[in-house]
Amino acid sequence: MDLQAIIDGIVSELEPRRGEGKVADYIPELAKVDPNQLGIAITTVNGKTYTSGDAETGFSIQSISKVFMLTLALGKIGEGIWRRVGREPSGSAFNSIVQLEHEHGIPRNPFINAGAIVVTDIVLAGHKPREAIGEFVHFMRFLADDNSIHIDEKVARSEQETGFRNYALGNFMRGFRNIKHPVDHVLGVYFHQCSLSMSCAQLSRAGIYLANRGTNPLTGFSVVSPRRSRRINALMLTCGHYDGSGDFAFHVGLPGKSGVGGGILAIAPGKASIAVWSPGLNEIGNSLLGAEALEMLATRTGWSVFGP
Amino acid sequence: MDLQAIIDGIVSELEPRRGEGKVADYIPELAKVDPNQLGIAITTVNGKTYTSGDAETGFSIQSISKVFMLTLALGKIGEGIWRRVGREPSGSAFNSIVQLEHEHGIPRNPFINAGAIVVTDIVLAGHKPREAIGEFVHFMRFLADDNSIHIDEKVARSEQETGFRNYALGNFMRGFRNIKHPVDHVLGVYFHQCSLSMSCAQLSRAGIYLANRGTNPLTGFSVVSPRRSRRINALMLTCGHYDGSGDFAFHVGLPGKSGVGGGILAIAPGKASIAVWSPGLNEIGNSLLGAEALEMLATRTGWSVFGP
Amino acid sequence: MDLQAIIDGIVSELEPRRGEGKVADYIPELAKVDPNQLGIAITTVNGKTYTSGDAETGFSIQSISKVFMLTLALGKIGEGIWRRVGREPSGSAFNSIVQLEHEHGIPRNPFINAGAIVVTDIVLAGHKPREAIGEFVHFMRFLADDNSIHIDEKVARSEQETGFRNYALGNFMRGFRNIKHPVDHVLGVYFHQCSLSMSCAQLSRAGIYLANRGTNPLTGFSVVSPRRSRRINALMLTCGHYDGSGDFAFHVGLPGKSGVGGGILAIAPGKASIAVWSPGLNEIGNSLLGAEALEMLATRTGWSVFGP
Amino acid sequence: MDLQAIIDGIVSELEPRRGEGKVADYIPELAKVDPNQLGIAITTVNGKTYTSGDAETGFSIQSISKVFMLTLALGKIGEGIWRRVGREPSGSAFNSIVQLEHEHGIPRNPFINAGAIVVTDIVLAGHKPREAIGEFVHFMRFLADDNSIHIDEKVARSEQETGFRNYALGNFMRGFRNIKHPVDHVLGVYFHQCSLSMSCAQLSRAGIYLANRGTNPLTGFSVVSPRRSRRINALMLTCGHYDGSGDFAFHVGLPGKSGVGGGILAIAPGKASIAVWSPGLNEIGNSLLGAEALEMLATRTGWSVFGP
Repeated sequence: MDLQAIIDGIVSELEPRRGEGKVADYIPELAKVDPNQLGIAITTVNGKTYTSGDAETGFSIQSISKVFMLTLALGKIGEGIWRRVGREPSGSAFNSIVQLEHEHGIPRNPFINAGAIVVTDIVLAGHKPREAIGEFVHFMRFLADDNSIHIDEKVARSEQETGFRNYALGNFMRGFRNIKHPVDHVLGVYFHQCSLSMSCAQLSRAGIYLANRGTNPLTGFSVVSPRRSRRINALMLTCGHYDGSGDFAFHVGLPGKSGVGGGILAIAPGKASIAVWSPGLNEIGNSLLGAEALEMLATRTGWSVFGP
Repeated sequence: MDLQAIIDGIVSELEPRRGEGKVADYIPELAKVDPNQLGIAITTVNGKTYTSGDAETGFSIQSISKVFMLTLALGKIGEGIWRRVGREPSGSAFNSIVQLEHEHGIPRNPFINAGAIVVTDIVLAGHKPREAIGEFVHFMRFLADDNSIHIDEKVARSEQETGFRNYALGNFMRGFRNIKHPVDHVLGVYFHQCSLSMSCAQLSRAGIYLANRGTNPLTGFSVVSPRRSRRINALMLTCGHYDGSGDFAFHVGLPGKSGVGGGILAIAPGKASIAVWSPGLNEIGNSLLGAEALEMLATRTGWSVFGP
Repeated sequence: MDLQAIIDGIVSELEPRRGEGKVADYIPELAKVDPNQLGIAITTVNGKTYTSGDAETGFSIQSISKVFMLTLALGKIGEGIWRRVGREPSGSAFNSIVQLEHEHGIPRNPFINAGAIVVTDIVLAGHKPREAIGEFVHFMRFLADDNSIHIDEKVARSEQETGFRNYALGNFMRGFRNIKHPVDHVLGVYFHQCSLSMSCAQLSRAGIYLANRGTNPLTGFSVVSPRRSRRINALMLTCGHYDGSGDFAFHVGLPGKSGVGGGILAIAPGKASIAVWSPGLNEIGNSLLGAEALEMLATRTGWSVFGP
Repeated sequence: MDLQAIIDGIVSELEPRRGEGKVADYIPELAKVDPNQLGIAITTVNGKTYTSGDAETGFSIQSISKVFMLTLALGKIGEGIWRRVGREPSGSAFNSIVQLEHEHGIPRNPFINAGAIVVTDIVLAGHKPREAIGEFVHFMRFLADDNSIHIDEKVARSEQETGFRNYALGNFMRGFRNIKHPVDHVLGVYFHQCSLSMSCAQLSRAGIYLANRGTNPLTGFSVVSPRRSRRINALMLTCGHYDGSGDFAFHVGLPGKSGVGGGILAIAPGKASIAVWSPGLNEIGNSLLGAEALEMLATRTGWSVFGP
């Protein structure tokens, strides 16, 4: 299978549609991104990376960071995390607070905002906010084997100034004692991890451990156990795209996590880690062309977990 | 891999736990079932069937029938079905009506009761209820290649007399014009298809087309296209266990559909169709030992779609 | 105070606005009513009735019947009724089912559809549906001292054929065992009581007991105790206009109950019973001109219970 | 009617029940209050004040302040306030956030926490927090004609440190742009106005304008117009006791506003302003003995707005 030809074909077929979708505008800094960009990168379990389009341009990974923060938190407190956050699809928007009231401050899963805020609270334990942010950046550099990865401070500040809904979620859960640290500290870390800037190439390398039984084939380091790797993939499949997770599974058939910056990380277990990026979003808030590119890729490679 | 040894081992390890869980009692006829039963059957894409425990005893497949009714309905009107039913996990109980009010009578997916009632309405089109029931039984006999499969009329009557919630769902959607036939007709068919009696062995054979790109390897007949087969699997994974779908994906990692009769059908794409049965349910309404047996099986075979 | 001059003035001021609002169309038979009608009738505790406009024309009282059915049910089982229906405003539409699911089949109050269906189930106890309907008609003739009052069978049939939402509510509550009789029987009675045809003049006489400490000054009969009369008024004020009850209290300041036929019954405790009718509804489903006429009347008479 | 004898009788009959109910404990400072207290004060439109029991002891008026803040806000921007807050009962708890999400950040009424936070935001306009607090204290001293009224800073601080849910509400509405000032400022004012300390005697005098067509008979000052006075009373009746408003209207039949400090202010339009206080709360969060005392009072005086 000629992966390079496949992704070049996809990028070329989507060429006329560059710019489709709506760039996220609720975070002012993100609204400034040029919408006409499209990149794909695939890193295989053999350690090779294939790229096409704007695959080397950095973008704000936003919610994709939730996968890596979950990995960090699981490393810290293990399966105890599930006492504070659920594992079920939410059936509602990424920033809904309704479910939290009905379920006593326990978010449905770690990939909606409320859940990721709890995960951040766990990662923060015993640290100052600045240290926790540093640990996360360090972890991402380690995963991608690339020390140039960094946080975009402008984006972080922009989020911090406008993220009222996230402050609401944090305070609401604090009221239920499911946030242990001062809400300002937790959200300081939360907004920074969302603001990590990475390219498709870097992202596909950072996620490869999930396709390779928990071990990074590039560095040989074991990040998580095979079982934990499977479980993170399962969560990505059922909960990775907010209230569009069912649809993504239906069309693409791969565990994935999207971010409002227009990136999507998808995992083909046993085969490859795939990162796509295009800033225009569909109505649920996932990259429009990114999702289409992944559907084309899954069809052409036969990598869907639901059968060739 | 010695599948026979694996399933014998599982049945034997679960031996001391037979009877755990709570048999469904809201349908009086189901409450009479002996709880101490446990069966497993695996049919592989090579056409071989392996059984262990009470794998030849018939039980009420209940909601597992929703997978086959969906297959029938897709065969009738194709992807047009998605104008009347969604593809997202519901985030609520199997018989919740709240979501229907918020989303104007469009059920979230075909595997919750409301969705399956819409699917039944589609299958009913142009038929008398008796004919539609006949067509479904015929379809199941064809899939399992077994003419002894039949409906348990006592269970059907028991459901019909106590299924007030389902009458509520049907009338509610009729009010939104998402049910086209008289509610009594639709529910007559609905209660009958739920009341099909099958053994694990029969069920694993009936489901094998979903593991084999849509084609039954036993008979050679193509039931659905490979793409449709993948999509049904995707729906089973994200929505097959009501509000426990995320948990099932997390622990088992296979597309599956459970029924309150204690049965679960699971699909290992490209490998096998698996049916387990044990009447005691967990608190979400899925077979307690059935789910455990499948978790053990997935671990020992490495069949999880999320990686070995 | 010259009541005749006041209501003549109101009818004449509203003359140019006749026909405003939207006639209920979800019950086909109601949609046929001429929208250009407007009537007012006041019956005082002294036993005098004043009328203006189309006050002698019969119309479908619809949900206004809920006040009288509640009176009947309280007469049968007393305060025990509150074990099966609440006394709080619903915060949602007249036919919402969401609250019922959250509160285990106990409707919020007797003036939303679900609550009135429970009340009907109580009135039905020990009777055949036909007898219960007969008892209600008899009661209304007794209250208004007018034997010409009757049910419009065409409207009743029209509701019966299209009232899917009410069948949903009935079945839903039957599932919670809060409906004791067959749903078909209960709704048969329910649709008939809604279909009572009365004029403003008749209605204002029928309601006068609520303004007069429970006793009809025209006939001298005690219908309910003073305390029960106060309590029914309280329920009309807090719950009589579905999710527009707060607004009605804010603008009019009188206990009232509206119906989708365009009628409103309002009570000025210690002073008078008022019936208005105009078929065009506002967006919440209350008579548009009827509510305006009552606001004008309350202002000009100083009858608001919240002060002159 | 001998009001002094009536209230002395009530206090004496409730003597053996002092201490019933549960003192609010979610605000640490309030939990310290001696539960065995009970006071009643009535100020009539003739300007006389009657007291019984602990009617001169100061207590934290808490949510009762919402009535006075609403009066202030209406004075500032008039009926424009209703673009930012509704007038309907909420059908849910005092601090629910669910409704806010469903209705785009517009609280249902000014007497639930979210609504009062919006009202506070309106009162804050053009001021520093300290000035707004000063204006409110000044207003309350003016209404009660008593310069000793003051804020309990310990309570204010206690609320500020534990009021996570209110911070959540404030941030949530800020996200919908229905809060204009920094959330910290708005809540600073909000927590201080809740922490006003007043006795029953002071409170009954402060509320007398609502019983007297908007004018304080003690000072002769017009506080609001008669129409506005009626409307505030209407809101108190339909929304004054959170999700227990219907029940309060049913049993007491007077506009009222309760606070978790155990106080209730009730208005008998055209007759009197009544303040009761007893710290033990019922399950909805209203003073248990306070509500009983008011029901006894309404029965014995015949002051229910729903008839004698």
